[in-house]
Amino acid sequence: MRISLQNNVLRTNDQLAQELRKQCTAAKTLVLNLTSAPGSGKTALLEASIPLLAPLRAAVIVGDLQTTRDADRIFAVTKQVEQINTEGGCHLSANQVEKAFQKLSLEKIDVLFIENVGNMVCPAGYDLGEHLRVAMVSAPEGEDKVAKYPTLFQPADAVILSKHDLWQPLNFDPQMTHDDLNKLNTAPRFTLSAHSGFGMREWIEWIRSKFSKI
Amino acid sequence: MRISLQNNVLRTNDQLAQELRKQCTAAKTLVLNLTSAPGSGKTALLEASIPLLAPLRAAVIVGDLQTTRDADRIFAVTKQVEQINTEGGCHLSANQVEKAFQKLSLEKIDVLFIENVGNMVCPAGYDLGEHLRVAMVSAPEGEDKVAKYPTLFQPADAVILSKHDLWQPLNFDPQMTHDDLNKLNTAPRFTLSAHSGFGMREWIEWIRSKFSKI
Repeated sequence: MRISLQNNVLRTNDQLAQELRKQCTAAKTLVLNLTSAPGSGKTALLEASIPLLAPLRAAVIVGDLQTTRDADRIFAVTKQVEQINTEGGCHLSANQVEKAFQKLSLEKIDVLFIENVGNMVCPAGYDLGEHLRVAMVSAPEGEDKVAKYPTLFQPADAVILSKHDLWQPLNFDPQMTHDDLNKLNTAPRFTLSAHSGFGMREWIEWIRSKFSKI
Repeated sequence: MRISLQNNVLRTNDQLAQELRKQCTAAKTLVLNLTSAPGSGKTALLEASIPLLAPLRAAVIVGDLQTTRDADRIFAVTKQVEQINTEGGCHLSANQVEKAFQKLSLEKIDVLFIENVGNMVCPAGYDLGEHLRVAMVSAPEGEDKVAKYPTLFQPADAVILSKHDLWQPLNFDPQMTHDDLNKLNTAPRFTLSAHSGFGMREWIEWIRSKFSKI
Protein backbone atom coordinates (compact mmCIF):
# COMPACT_ATOMS: atom_id res chain seq x y z
CA MET A 1 0.00 0.00 0.00
CA ARG A 2 2.83 2.35 0.86
CA ILE A 3 4.47 1.57 -2.46
CA SER A 4 1.29 1.97 -4.54
CA LEU A 5 0.56 5.30 -2.87
CA GLN A 6 4.05 6.54 -3.70
CA ASN A 7 3.77 5.27 -7.27
CA ASN A 8 0.52 7.18 -7.61
CA VAL A 9 2.08 10.40 -6.33
CA LEU A 10 4.98 9.96 -8.77
CA ARG A 11 2.65 9.18 -11.69
CA THR A 12 0.62 12.32 -11.07
CA ASN A 13 3.84 14.34 -10.81
CA ASP A 14 5.19 12.83 -14.02
CA GLN A 15 2.01 13.55 -15.98
CA LEU A 16 2.04 17.19 -14.93
CA ALA A 17 5.77 17.41 -15.69
CA GLN A 18 5.12 16.15 -19.22
CA GLU A 19 2.55 18.89 -19.72
CA LEU A 20 4.93 21.56 -18.41
CA ARG A 21 7.68 20.32 -20.74
CA LYS A 22 5.35 20.50 -23.75
CA GLN A 23 4.33 24.02 -22.77
CA CYS A 24 7.98 25.11 -22.53
CA THR A 25 8.95 23.45 -25.81
CA ALA A 26 6.06 25.25 -27.52
CA ALA A 27 7.26 28.54 -26.01
CA LYS A 28 10.85 27.80 -27.11
CA THR A 29 11.99 27.97 -23.47
CA LEU A 30 14.82 25.59 -22.57
CA VAL A 31 14.40 24.27 -19.02
CA LEU A 32 17.29 22.97 -16.89
CA ASN A 33 16.80 21.30 -13.50
CA LEU A 34 19.91 21.94 -11.39
CA THR A 35 20.51 19.50 -8.52
CA SER A 36 23.27 19.14 -5.92
CA ALA A 37 24.00 18.95 -2.20
CA PRO A 38 23.47 22.12 -0.14
CA GLY A 39 26.33 24.53 -0.70
CA SER A 40 27.76 23.12 -3.93
CA GLY A 41 27.35 26.53 -5.51
CA LYS A 42 24.09 26.34 -7.48
CA THR A 43 23.15 29.97 -6.80
CA ALA A 44 26.70 31.20 -7.45
CA LEU A 45 26.71 29.31 -10.76
CA LEU A 46 23.46 31.01 -11.82
CA GLU A 47 24.74 34.42 -10.75
CA ALA A 48 27.77 33.88 -13.01
CA SER A 49 25.96 32.16 -15.89
CA ILE A 50 23.00 34.44 -16.50
CA PRO A 51 25.00 37.53 -17.59
CA LEU A 52 27.17 35.33 -19.85
CA LEU A 53 24.08 33.89 -21.56
CA ALA A 54 22.96 37.30 -22.88
CA PRO A 55 21.34 38.05 -25.29
CA LEU A 56 19.50 34.90 -24.24
CA ARG A 57 17.01 35.87 -21.55
CA ALA A 58 17.23 33.70 -18.44
CA ALA A 59 14.81 33.14 -15.56
CA VAL A 60 15.09 31.13 -12.35
CA ILE A 61 12.72 29.16 -10.14
CA VAL A 62 14.54 28.48 -6.89
CA GLY A 63 13.53 26.06 -4.15
CA ASP A 64 14.51 26.18 -0.48
CA LEU A 65 12.91 25.00 2.74
CA GLN A 66 12.95 28.55 4.06
CA THR A 67 14.18 32.08 3.29
CA THR A 68 14.28 34.11 0.07
CA ARG A 69 18.05 34.51 0.22
CA ASP A 70 18.76 32.77 -3.10
CA ALA A 71 16.05 34.68 -4.96
CA ASP A 72 17.36 37.92 -3.49
CA ARG A 73 20.83 37.15 -4.86
CA ILE A 74 19.56 36.09 -8.28
CA PHE A 75 17.34 39.17 -8.58
CA ALA A 76 20.54 41.15 -9.22
CA VAL A 77 21.06 39.30 -12.52
CA THR A 78 17.47 38.67 -13.65
CA LYS A 79 14.16 40.12 -12.54
CA GLN A 80 12.42 36.92 -13.65
CA VAL A 81 12.97 34.89 -10.46
CA GLU A 82 10.47 33.00 -8.33
CA GLN A 83 11.33 31.58 -4.90
CA ILE A 84 9.47 28.49 -3.70
CA ASN A 85 9.63 27.70 0.02
CA THR A 86 8.92 24.01 0.54
CA GLU A 87 8.35 24.50 4.31
CA GLY A 88 10.27 21.35 5.15
CA GLY A 89 9.87 19.52 1.84
CA CYS A 90 13.05 17.84 0.59
CA HIS A 91 12.61 18.45 -3.16
CA LEU A 92 10.59 20.49 -5.65
CA SER A 93 7.62 18.91 -7.39
CA ALA A 94 5.92 19.63 -10.70
CA ASN A 95 2.87 21.27 -9.11
CA GLN A 96 5.11 23.80 -7.32
CA VAL A 97 6.82 24.56 -10.63
CA GLU A 98 3.42 24.94 -12.31
CA LYS A 99 2.41 27.55 -9.71
CA ALA A 100 5.66 29.45 -10.28
CA PHE A 101 4.99 29.38 -14.06
CA GLN A 102 1.88 31.47 -13.44
CA LYS A 103 4.07 34.33 -12.20
CA LEU A 104 6.60 34.11 -15.03
CA SER A 105 6.23 35.16 -18.66
CA LEU A 106 7.45 32.12 -20.59
CA GLU A 107 7.31 33.99 -23.91
CA LYS A 108 10.00 36.29 -22.56
CA ILE A 109 12.28 33.49 -21.31
CA ASP A 110 14.82 31.63 -23.44
CA VAL A 111 16.48 29.62 -20.65
CA LEU A 112 14.69 28.71 -17.43
CA PHE A 113 16.80 27.30 -14.61
CA ILE A 114 15.10 25.40 -11.82
CA GLU A 115 17.42 25.45 -8.80
CA ASN A 116 16.25 22.47 -6.78
CA VAL A 117 16.39 22.10 -2.99
CA GLY A 118 19.95 21.28 -1.89
CA ASN A 119 19.72 17.51 -1.51
CA MET A 120 21.51 14.67 -3.30
CA VAL A 121 18.73 12.13 -2.77
CA CYS A 122 15.09 13.19 -3.04
CA PRO A 123 15.13 15.57 -6.05
CA ALA A 124 16.37 12.71 -8.26
CA GLY A 125 12.92 11.06 -8.22
CA TYR A 126 10.88 14.05 -9.38
CA ASP A 127 10.52 15.19 -12.96
CA LEU A 128 9.86 18.95 -12.96
CA GLY A 129 9.17 19.30 -16.68
CA GLU A 130 12.80 20.05 -17.49
CA HIS A 131 14.43 19.30 -20.83
CA LEU A 132 17.78 18.68 -19.20
CA ARG A 133 18.87 17.63 -15.76
CA VAL A 134 22.20 18.90 -14.46
CA ALA A 135 23.88 17.32 -11.41
CA MET A 136 26.65 19.20 -9.65
CA VAL A 137 29.25 18.26 -7.04
CA SER A 138 31.87 20.57 -5.53
CA ALA A 139 35.44 19.72 -4.63
CA PRO A 140 35.12 20.35 -0.85
CA GLU A 141 32.43 17.63 -0.62
CA GLY A 142 35.08 15.04 -1.38
CA GLU A 143 35.93 12.84 -4.32
CA ASP A 144 33.59 9.99 -3.30
CA LYS A 145 30.15 11.53 -3.77
CA VAL A 146 29.24 10.17 -7.21
CA ALA A 147 29.40 6.54 -6.10
CA LYS A 148 27.53 7.33 -2.89
CA TYR A 149 24.66 9.14 -4.62
CA PRO A 150 24.34 7.33 -7.98
CA THR A 151 20.62 8.11 -8.35
CA LEU A 152 21.51 11.80 -8.75
CA PHE A 153 24.28 11.34 -11.30
CA GLN A 154 23.14 8.38 -13.40
CA PRO A 155 20.20 10.16 -15.11
CA ALA A 156 22.01 13.52 -15.47
CA ASP A 157 22.29 15.10 -18.94
CA ALA A 158 25.35 16.99 -17.75
CA VAL A 159 27.59 16.84 -14.68
CA ILE A 160 29.36 19.83 -13.21
CA LEU A 161 32.44 19.60 -10.98
CA SER A 162 32.26 22.98 -9.27
CA LYS A 163 34.56 25.16 -7.16
CA HIS A 164 37.60 24.44 -9.34
CA ASP A 165 39.32 27.39 -7.61
CA LEU A 166 39.51 25.25 -4.45
CA TRP A 167 41.17 22.23 -6.07
CA GLN A 168 44.66 23.50 -5.29
CA PRO A 169 44.11 24.54 -1.63
CA LEU A 170 42.26 21.26 -1.03
CA ASN A 171 44.79 19.19 -2.98
CA PHE A 172 41.73 17.74 -4.70
CA ASP A 173 42.20 14.85 -7.13
CA PRO A 174 39.16 14.37 -9.41
CA GLN A 175 40.23 10.93 -10.62
CA MET A 176 37.86 8.92 -8.39
CA THR A 177 34.96 11.20 -9.36
CA HIS A 178 35.70 10.67 -13.07
CA ASP A 179 36.13 6.92 -12.65
CA ASP A 180 32.82 6.66 -10.77
CA LEU A 181 31.05 8.81 -13.39
CA ASN A 182 32.44 6.62 -16.20
CA LYS A 183 30.53 3.71 -14.68
CA LEU A 184 27.24 5.65 -14.61
CA ASN A 185 26.92 7.68 -17.79
CA THR A 186 28.56 9.38 -20.75
CA ALA A 187 27.00 12.81 -20.22
CA PRO A 188 29.12 15.90 -20.85
CA ARG A 189 31.16 17.03 -17.85
CA PHE A 190 32.10 20.58 -17.00
CA THR A 191 34.85 21.44 -14.57
CA LEU A 192 34.34 25.05 -13.63
CA SER A 193 34.47 27.79 -11.03
CA ALA A 194 31.80 30.47 -10.85
CA HIS A 195 34.28 32.37 -8.66
CA SER A 196 37.32 32.40 -10.97
CA GLY A 197 35.44 31.95 -14.26
CA PHE A 198 37.43 28.83 -15.15
CA GLY A 199 35.47 26.53 -17.48
CA MET A 200 32.43 28.81 -17.68
CA ARG A 201 32.69 29.28 -21.45
CA GLU A 202 32.25 25.56 -22.23
CA TRP A 203 29.22 25.36 -19.92
CA ILE A 204 27.58 28.42 -21.48
CA GLU A 205 28.28 27.15 -25.02
CA TRP A 206 26.62 23.83 -24.12
CA ILE A 207 23.47 25.65 -22.95
CA ARG A 208 23.46 27.77 -26.12
CA SER A 209 23.75 24.70 -28.33
CA LYS A 210 20.88 22.99 -26.47
CA PHE A 211 18.76 26.13 -26.75
CA SER A 212 19.35 26.32 -30.52
CA LYS A 213 17.94 22.80 -30.96
CA ILE A 214 14.78 23.19 -28.90
CA MET B 1 -4.77 9.81 4.12
CA ARG B 2 -1.25 10.66 3.02
CA ILE B 3 -0.65 12.51 6.27
CA SER B 4 -2.10 9.81 8.51
CA LEU B 5 -0.01 7.17 6.79
CA GLN B 6 3.14 9.22 7.35
CA ASN B 7 2.18 9.86 10.97
CA ASN B 8 1.79 6.14 11.42
CA VAL B 9 5.21 5.42 9.95
CA LEU B 10 6.75 8.05 12.21
CA ARG B 11 4.93 6.77 15.32
CA THR B 12 6.19 3.25 14.72
CA ASN B 13 9.71 4.60 14.17
CA ASP B 14 9.51 6.69 17.35
CA GLN B 15 8.30 3.77 19.48
CA LEU B 16 11.18 1.60 18.32
CA ALA B 17 13.62 4.47 18.82
CA GLN B 18 12.42 4.83 22.43
CA GLU B 19 13.15 1.14 23.01
CA LEU B 20 16.61 1.41 21.47
CA ARG B 21 17.40 4.43 23.64
CA LYS B 22 16.36 2.56 26.80
CA GLN B 23 18.51 -0.39 25.77
CA CYS B 24 21.54 1.86 25.26
CA THR B 25 20.99 3.73 28.51
CA ALA B 26 20.83 0.40 30.36
CA ALA B 27 24.09 -0.66 28.66
CA LYS B 28 25.71 2.71 29.54
CA THR B 29 26.28 3.40 25.86
CA LEU B 30 25.99 7.05 24.85
CA VAL B 31 24.46 7.38 21.38
CA LEU B 32 25.00 10.41 19.11
CA ASN B 33 23.16 10.91 15.82
CA LEU B 34 25.39 12.95 13.49
CA THR B 35 23.62 14.81 10.68
CA SER B 36 24.82 17.13 7.93
CA ALA B 37 24.88 17.70 4.18
CA PRO B 38 26.95 15.33 2.05
CA GLY B 39 30.62 16.19 2.35
CA SER B 40 30.55 18.29 5.53
CA GLY B 41 33.14 15.96 7.02
CA LYS B 42 31.17 13.53 9.20
CA THR B 43 33.47 10.60 8.46
CA ALA B 44 36.60 12.72 8.86
CA LEU B 45 35.30 13.96 12.21
CA LEU B 46 34.79 10.39 13.42
CA GLU B 47 38.23 9.33 12.17
CA ALA B 48 39.75 12.16 14.23
CA SER B 49 37.48 11.83 17.27
CA ILE B 50 37.58 8.13 18.00
CA PRO B 51 41.31 7.90 18.86
CA LEU B 52 40.98 11.03 21.05
CA LEU B 53 38.10 9.48 23.00
CA ALA B 54 40.25 6.57 24.27
CA PRO B 55 40.06 4.92 26.75
CA LEU B 56 36.35 5.29 25.92
CA ARG B 57 35.48 2.64 23.36
CA ALA B 58 33.68 3.98 20.31
CA ALA B 59 31.60 2.31 17.62
CA VAL B 60 29.95 3.63 14.45
CA ILE B 61 26.82 2.84 12.47
CA VAL B 62 27.16 4.59 9.14
CA GLY B 63 24.43 5.14 6.55
CA ASP B 64 24.88 5.74 2.83
CA LEU B 65 22.78 5.08 -0.25
CA GLN B 66 25.58 2.96 -1.70
CA THR B 67 29.18 1.84 -1.11
CA THR B 68 31.08 0.80 2.03
CA ARG B 69 33.64 3.58 1.63
CA ASP B 70 32.86 5.29 4.93
CA ALA B 71 32.90 2.05 6.92
CA ASP B 72 36.19 1.10 5.27
CA ARG B 73 37.71 4.40 6.44
CA ILE B 74 36.32 4.13 9.96
CA PHE B 75 37.49 0.52 10.30
CA ALA B 76 41.02 1.91 10.68
CA VAL B 77 40.05 3.53 14.00
CA THR B 78 37.48 1.09 15.38
CA LYS B 79 36.60 -2.48 14.43
CA GLN B 80 33.08 -1.92 15.73
CA VAL B 81 31.59 -0.37 12.60
CA GLU B 82 28.46 -1.31 10.67
CA GLN B 83 27.60 0.10 7.26
CA ILE B 84 23.95 0.42 6.28
CA ASN B 85 23.16 0.90 2.58
CA THR B 86 19.77 2.53 2.23
CA GLU B 87 19.58 1.67 -1.52
CA GLY B 88 18.13 5.06 -2.38
CA GLY B 89 16.65 5.93 1.03
CA CYS B 90 17.27 9.52 2.11
CA HIS B 91 17.74 8.93 5.86
CA LEU B 92 18.33 6.17 8.41
CA SER B 93 15.39 4.79 10.38
CA ALA B 94 15.17 3.10 13.77
CA ASN B 95 14.58 -0.36 12.32
CA GLN B 96 17.81 -0.14 10.31
CA VAL B 97 19.65 0.88 13.48
CA GLU B 98 18.05 -2.02 15.35
CA LYS B 99 19.37 -4.45 12.74
CA ALA B 100 22.87 -2.99 13.04
CA PHE B 101 22.65 -3.37 16.85
CA GLN B 102 22.43 -7.12 16.36
CA LYS B 103 25.93 -7.11 14.90
CA LEU B 104 27.45 -4.85 17.57
CA SER B 105 28.31 -5.65 21.18
CA LEU B 106 26.71 -2.80 23.14
CA GLU B 107 28.35 -3.93 26.38
CA LYS B 108 31.73 -3.19 24.78
CA ILE B 109 30.74 0.26 23.50
CA ASP B 110 30.90 3.48 25.50
CA VAL B 111 30.10 5.91 22.71
CA LEU B 112 28.09 4.92 19.63
CA PHE B 113 28.04 7.36 16.72
CA ILE B 114 25.33 7.05 14.12
CA GLU B 115 26.56 8.77 10.97
CA ASN B 116 23.35 9.54 9.11
CA VAL B 117 22.90 9.75 5.34
CA GLY B 118 24.30 13.05 4.05
CA ASN B 119 21.12 15.12 3.80
CA MET B 120 20.03 18.31 5.57
CA VAL B 121 16.30 17.59 5.31
CA CYS B 122 14.99 14.06 5.76
CA PRO B 123 17.12 12.76 8.70
CA ALA B 124 15.70 15.53 10.90
CA GLY B 125 12.33 13.77 11.14
CA TYR B 126 13.57 10.39 12.31
CA ASP B 127 14.51 9.52 15.88
CA LEU B 128 17.12 6.74 15.79
CA GLY B 129 17.23 6.10 19.53
CA GLU B 130 20.03 8.59 20.09
CA HIS B 131 20.62 10.45 23.35
CA LEU B 132 22.00 13.47 21.51
CA ARG B 133 21.60 14.86 18.06
CA VAL B 134 24.52 16.70 16.51
CA ALA B 135 24.05 18.90 13.42
CA MET B 136 27.10 19.93 11.43
CA VAL B 137 27.74 22.49 8.69
CA SER B 138 31.05 23.16 6.95
CA ALA B 139 32.43 26.50 5.83
CA PRO B 140 32.51 25.73 2.08
CA GLU B 141 28.73 25.21 2.11
CA GLY B 142 28.27 28.90 2.79
CA GLU B 143 27.18 31.00 5.72
CA ASP B 144 23.45 30.79 4.93
CA LYS B 145 22.68 27.13 5.58
CA VAL B 146 21.26 27.34 9.12
CA ALA B 147 18.37 29.59 8.10
CA LYS B 148 17.70 27.53 5.00
CA TYR B 149 17.55 24.21 6.85
CA PRO B 150 16.12 25.12 10.28
CA THR B 151 14.56 21.69 10.86
CA LEU B 152 18.06 20.22 11.08
CA PHE B 153 19.50 22.79 13.47
CA GLN B 154 16.58 23.71 15.71
CA PRO B 155 16.38 20.35 17.56
CA ALA B 156 20.16 19.81 17.70
CA ASP B 157 21.82 19.20 21.08
CA ALA B 158 25.07 20.47 19.65
CA VAL B 159 26.09 22.25 16.46
CA ILE B 160 29.45 21.85 14.78
CA LEU B 161 30.95 24.36 12.37
CA SER B 162 33.45 22.16 10.59
CA LYS B 163 36.43 22.64 8.25
CA HIS B 164 37.80 25.57 10.25
CA ASP B 165 41.08 25.10 8.35
CA LEU B 166 39.28 26.44 5.24
CA TRP B 167 37.94 29.63 6.83
CA GLN B 168 40.98 31.64 5.81
CA PRO B 169 41.28 30.45 2.16
CA LEU B 170 37.50 30.91 1.78
CA ASN B 171 37.47 34.25 3.61
CA PHE B 172 34.59 32.71 5.58
CA ASP B 173 32.71 34.90 8.06
CA PRO B 174 30.68 32.83 10.57
CA GLN B 175 28.61 35.78 11.81
CA MET B 176 25.45 35.01 9.79
CA THR B 177 25.62 31.36 10.87
CA HIS B 178 25.86 32.38 14.53
CA ASP B 179 23.09 34.95 14.19
CA ASP B 180 20.79 32.41 12.55
CA LEU B 181 21.63 29.79 15.20
CA ASN B 182 20.88 32.30 17.98
CA LYS B 183 17.31 32.46 16.69
CA LEU B 184 16.90 28.68 16.77
CA ASN B 185 18.53 27.29 19.89
CA THR B 186 21.05 27.68 22.69
CA ALA B 187 22.86 24.38 22.16
CA PRO B 188 26.64 24.25 22.54
CA ARG B 189 28.57 25.10 19.39
CA PHE B 190 31.92 23.72 18.37
CA THR B 191 34.09 25.33 15.73
CA LEU B 192 36.62 22.72 14.72
CA SER B 193 38.72 21.11 12.04
CA ALA B 194 39.28 17.37 11.94
CA HIS B 195 42.12 18.12 9.53
CA SER B 196 44.11 20.62 11.65
CA GLY B 197 42.87 19.50 15.07
CA PHE B 198 41.57 22.98 15.91
CA GLY B 199 38.73 22.86 18.44
CA MET B 200 38.75 19.08 18.77
CA ARG B 201 39.52 19.13 22.50
CA GLU B 202 36.32 21.01 23.42
CA TRP B 203 34.21 18.64 21.31
CA ILE B 204 35.80 15.55 22.87
CA GLU B 205 35.41 16.97 26.38
CA TRP B 206 31.71 17.60 25.72
CA ILE B 207 31.22 13.97 24.69
CA ARG B 208 33.13 12.78 27.77
CA SER B 209 30.95 14.92 30.06
CA LYS B 210 27.76 13.60 28.45
CA PHE B 211 29.04 10.02 28.76
CA SER B 212 29.78 10.51 32.46
CA LYS B 213 26.15 11.49 33.10
CA ILE B 214 24.48 8.64 31.25
